[in-house]
Amino acid sequence: MRIVSLAGGIGGARFLRGLKAAAPGSDITVIGNTGDDITLFGLRVCPDLDTVMYTLGGGIDEEQGWGRSGESHVVKEELAAYGVEPQWFGLGDRDFATHIVRSQMLAAGYPLSQVTEALCDRWQPGVRLLPMSDDRTETHVVISDENGRRAVHFQEWWVRLRASLPAEQIGLVGAEDATPAPGVLEAIGEADLVILPPSNPVVSIGTILQIPGIRAALEDKTVVGVSPIIGGAPVRGMADACLTAIGVETSAQAVLELYGSRLIDGWLVAEEDKGVALDGVTVEARPLLMDSPEATRDIAAAALSLAHTLHA
Amino acid sequence: MRIVSLAGGIGGARFLRGLKAAAPGSDITVIGNTGDDITLFGLRVCPDLDTVMYTLGGGIDEEQGWGRSGESHVVKEELAAYGVEPQWFGLGDRDFATHIVRSQMLAAGYPLSQVTEALCDRWQPGVRLLPMSDDRTETHVVISDENGRRAVHFQEWWVRLRASLPAEQIGLVGAEDATPAPGVLEAIGEADLVILPPSNPVVSIGTILQIPGIRAALEDKTVVGVSPIIGGAPVRGMADACLTAIGVETSAQAVLELYGSRLIDGWLVAEEDKGVALDGVTVEARPLLMDSPEATRDIAAAALSLAHTLHA
Repeated sequence: MRIVSLAGGIGGARFLRGLKAAAPGSDITVIGNTGDDITLFGLRVCPDLDTVMYTLGGGIDEEQGWGRSGESHVVKEELAAYGVEPQWFGLGDRDFATHIVRSQMLAAGYPLSQVTEALCDRWQPGVRLLPMSDDRTETHVVISDENGRRAVHFQEWWVRLRASLPAEQIGLVGAEDATPAPGVLEAIGEADLVILPPSNPVVSIGTILQIPGIRAALEDKTVVGVSPIIGGAPVRGMADACLTAIGVETSAQAVLELYGSRLIDGWLVAEEDKGVALDGVTVEARPLLMDSPEATRDIAAAALSLAHTLHA
Repeated sequence: MRIVSLAGGIGGARFLRGLKAAAPGSDITVIGNTGDDITLFGLRVCPDLDTVMYTLGGGIDEEQGWGRSGESHVVKEELAAYGVEPQWFGLGDRDFATHIVRSQMLAAGYPLSQVTEALCDRWQPGVRLLPMSDDRTETHVVISDENGRRAVHFQEWWVRLRASLPAEQIGLVGAEDATPAPGVLEAIGEADLVILPPSNPVVSIGTILQIPGIRAALEDKTVVGVSPIIGGAPVRGMADACLTAIGVETSAQAVLELYGSRLIDGWLVAEEDKGVALDGVTVEARPLLMDSPEATRDIAAAALSLAHTLHA
């Protein structure tokens, strides 16, 4: 069975681990969000791709959900001793090596998709991990503070400010001119079904959908989404802050409407969100808390099962 | 008193520490060798500049003579786990931070001299450290092995091969088109005296002398050199292998002749090399083993004292 999944960071990566467990022997292609990517200290950092790669490849810091297990922070402390900014982004020594390899390959002219493949040679995530695009795009967030109204990189809002200032606008700079990475449209075209994990609907899934051609390709497919909102609150992360920024309510209903029935065929909601409905979409309610690998596998299995029903 | 000193790596840096101790209150400018510089993993590494900076700034691994004290090697191990080459160059985590800052500044357009100044802001080496040139030059070594006769980067011969294959030729690629870094000729012009530490006469001092304009500027000055050879053997390092490559005997006499009497006014040799002589050069014999900070300070003091005599 050929499955395509879109993914953001921590939540998406954990869901994918469940999906692998629920569909052993399947051929899974993951289209990863690169809108969060950032250049720090001259090195290209791809937080979401790395979180997926480390999580599925066994290198993740399980407790934190991102970064490497057994991590140390010597390089970061030394950079701080040089007074180099920013100091609010937590890069560990092991993680630095990934960014050094990536940056060296990018500088040598390899596109991000080939770089990601090379990094995955080591990690063997058990899925084919593709960046949404080889073109550089960046999610920027408009905020207002004592310096006035200005756009900052998503990571500055998310990590430095912990989304404490309201996002007035969220946009993907470079989206119009970006094209899907090699293999993305082909994988979607050949997929038997598509699963949307409970990743952030604005800055993860929403970002991927902004790359011209990806949404249209998905609309031809059987797509089942897992609601990232349970009873009015995000499963994890700060999806509510992002939804508010684009004028969407934090609810399983509103996120379904945001994605729309042209994209979504099946929608899994939590039991407390049973009433959710949209014409042309089959909604099922079940426990959606990813509080253990087994629970996560069961959610993925339910999404697959719903997709099979719709696909048949 | 304004002193200019040329310097390579370990030996030069240790001598400079002695020079600082011997000439407190002096204004010392160090012109550092950058022919050993190498780009590793996309990062620009300047081994000699860093050895001087760390040694004089209190950050050196004293036993090893290069690299940072209290060093760890997580990044290097991770790069090896990715299969990235080369793995024979020992970069520690603390040291990596220096190369990351340097590379980021170079990529932003700052010349190496400004980058070095910025790095020294942290280390406060107590001297003004200038690269010999902002232009990129690289010492290459011609060797013959099972792959035939070929030129390799100096570091590959020195570090990977431990100079085990004879150097058939040693050259500074890019020398003809290089110009001295800003401040170099000015510092020489304003100097009261110039001291050549017992650095490698071929790949350290000899390299600096190849940058057009530097040797000529030095020839107008009172220059005292400390012989890097004691009784037919290098004080440290593998100067003999480099001297052989350029057809020069490993002796205090031959190195003095290599530098020549137009450059050198005073020459300090070890007591076992008492017979050394060259027209126009004042030779003095004294203990030259830098086996303690005090002994090193005494050698520097002797060089200064000889220079004062000649200058007067």
